[in-house]
Amino acid sequence: MKPLGPIPAGFRAIDGELAIGGRKASDLVAEAGGTPLFVYDGALMAARVASLRSALPARLGLHYAMKANPFAPVLRHMARLVDGFDIASGGELLLAEAAGVEPARISFAGPGKRDADLAAAIGRGVTLNLESAREAERALAIGERLGQAPRLAIRVNPDFDLKGSGMKMGGGAKPFGVDAASVPALAKRIIAAGAEWRGFHIYAGSQTLDAAAIAAMQAATIALAARLAEESGAVLPACNLGGGFGIPYFPGDLPLDLDIVGAALGEQLAALPGVLENTAFCIELGRYLVGEAGVYLTRIIDRKESHGEVFLVTDGGLHHQLAASGNFGTVVRRNYPSAIATKFGAEPEEVVSVVGCLCTPLDRLADKGGFPRAEEGDLVAVFCAGAYGASASPVNFLGHGPAAEWMVNASA
Amino acid sequence: MKPLGPIPAGFRAIDGELAIGGRKASDLVAEAGGTPLFVYDGALMAARVASLRSALPARLGLHYAMKANPFAPVLRHMARLVDGFDIASGGELLLAEAAGVEPARISFAGPGKRDADLAAAIGRGVTLNLESAREAERALAIGERLGQAPRLAIRVNPDFDLKGSGMKMGGGAKPFGVDAASVPALAKRIIAAGAEWRGFHIYAGSQTLDAAAIAAMQAATIALAARLAEESGAVLPACNLGGGFGIPYFPGDLPLDLDIVGAALGEQLAALPGVLENTAFCIELGRYLVGEAGVYLTRIIDRKESHGEVFLVTDGGLHHQLAASGNFGTVVRRNYPSAIATKFGAEPEEVVSVVGCLCTPLDRLADKGGFPRAEEGDLVAVFCAGAYGASASPVNFLGHGPAAEWMVNASA
Repeated sequence: MKPLGPIPAGFRAIDGELAIGGRKASDLVAEAGGTPLFVYDGALMAARVASLRSALPARLGLHYAMKANPFAPVLRHMARLVDGFDIASGGELLLAEAAGVEPARISFAGPGKRDADLAAAIGRGVTLNLESAREAERALAIGERLGQAPRLAIRVNPDFDLKGSGMKMGGGAKPFGVDAASVPALAKRIIAAGAEWRGFHIYAGSQTLDAAAIAAMQAATIALAARLAEESGAVLPACNLGGGFGIPYFPGDLPLDLDIVGAALGEQLAALPGVLENTAFCIELGRYLVGEAGVYLTRIIDRKESHGEVFLVTDGGLHHQLAASGNFGTVVRRNYPSAIATKFGAEPEEVVSVVGCLCTPLDRLADKGGFPRAEEGDLVAVFCAGAYGASASPVNFLGHGPAAEWMVNASA
Repeated sequence: MKPLGPIPAGFRAIDGELAIGGRKASDLVAEAGGTPLFVYDGALMAARVASLRSALPARLGLHYAMKANPFAPVLRHMARLVDGFDIASGGELLLAEAAGVEPARISFAGPGKRDADLAAAIGRGVTLNLESAREAERALAIGERLGQAPRLAIRVNPDFDLKGSGMKMGGGAKPFGVDAASVPALAKRIIAAGAEWRGFHIYAGSQTLDAAAIAAMQAATIALAARLAEESGAVLPACNLGGGFGIPYFPGDLPLDLDIVGAALGEQLAALPGVLENTAFCIELGRYLVGEAGVYLTRIIDRKESHGEVFLVTDGGLHHQLAASGNFGTVVRRNYPSAIATKFGAEPEEVVSVVGCLCTPLDRLADKGGFPRAEEGDLVAVFCAGAYGASASPVNFLGHGPAAEWMVNASA
């Protein structure tokens, strides 16, 4: 038997069945029209934001990195909860706009921004996190053509990375941002060209559960921002400290200790050098805000045995949950948290593997996990499905079509 | 410097530029409306089918596994070239039908077929490759309800796998097919229930370049089919021997030697036991038919340096080419074949990495490869993009949208 990841807090059983946001899984499936189905609980997102607001310094802004989950009701919900949105493409700009997010609250990072993306962002007053000196020149030229001073920040490629990070975004040669050594000259150039100077975006890594590593990264980020601001010869209007806050996916993972992060950042912000005294600081989180608030529900189509092993074949799969199948950015496959939703909380009775309906051995949602006995028609829940699920999976692969998405407890 | 995979045969330079199907890449991009763009050359697909027909026994049928590339013009083109289509979902059934493929030429494999999928297939006369005894009962019941005898084959989980295979589909406990030991009883049950008996589907693995391994697998498959047919007490109308024919993706890969496969299979088919004398044999290929006929073209948006390394940032990425980024079913990332399309055939001048426009370090199309010097506006080609590209990638990830797809040299 292989262990399953830890089921996030906030879920309970009603009549022996998984409840999401107080609603039974089978009722949600009936309401949404069937499986496979993603359900997102807005109350869990709000609670997560509240816990961040409580633990972190009051002056720290909170941004939502919408790449984690761009489902329109999630965007509308998050727009009421956070201070800013971070987007990664012209397509995300349109989605954010459609969800009512004011462009002035949006910043746009990402290598390879096309001229059309830059023009759309500049025209709306979105802040661009510049990825290169060349991109700066293109943005300035487009601003001139549009007769509008672009709002420009520089994405800094820091000389350090985030310890224990699942995704290193800084340290050494990277396609992201401008090497720290080249930042002061570029800042001067941008300011001299008449752009609206928006400061720095410094993103060193993502998905760590180590609070001390995040605190160390934030301290290093602030020190770097101070040095680069001094060398740029201008006060720093804003600084995005990046993210890095991870969620537990796998057996043995423990939740991030927010109090440690908050206390350390509070000390940092209480002792800022003069050049940063009036800087607006924010962090940018995606997965941490929405990941644990989502559940992926699939129905068992077949229960079969092969050479003594039991397989529960579902109507879902890696076309909706690539990361849960272990095929996206992970080297060793480990089990996400999962459960038989229609027997939630029941004791494990047997060792089975939960597979998807795709005709490939890659399509495995749980490998040799311990579950109560399940039959055709039972629902399987895969947790931690609120981020990088529906939108980060190869939805057209094998032609089964997309999963439905459904939100409960959205803000009114 | 890290080596690049071998560029497939069939591509040449015109005026120093990559030509696909005799057309310059930049002309194709202009015609299709921009980048990123997949271009598929129907002439290369036809040549591949011709080489198979020439090397393999004449009695062997050739099926196209459309999961490899379900682009409608590709389906229409392949429908004229091959004898049958293999589908993996109800969605693929609709696409095949829309492309004019006669349902009698279609077989449907895949675990987790829903009742609606079974009904659609049975109603149209599609052959079902049954994945379990339970699925057989569901198909029989649906056939009865529809008043139509279902066409049923059994997918066999063989007791062997394909040596050197990238994807093992048989051997030991698997979610696919029926364990060989249970097949005869199920065949008897199906025949007794009045279904149209369509024989066996035995798929032991995919993507090997080792001709001897394929020959050995095919011999073992035929021996297994003979034994199971004997034990089933019925002549075998048809047997799908599966696929397994690989294409070279990576440095050092050599093309599969079709003559070895063809000669060995010829000997096998010339010495069949009585129970298989009138069996219609076929193989099922996807990647091998279309993979090398496709090229993914992206445009360089930014050329940047970080800590002495050069990055070419393109408008494409893993949202279209997940496998090329090394994030789909591979453990060690290696470089696909790629080139600067607008300087095709020019000598390497520098070591650069080609990255996509996604804001994640996973998005790398070529890692530290040797290329002629390229600038903003140049086109990058990634080869071996005809299979498991556009449809097997997380197209909605980060909101950049799909790539265009374009076909040249389609049959009239």
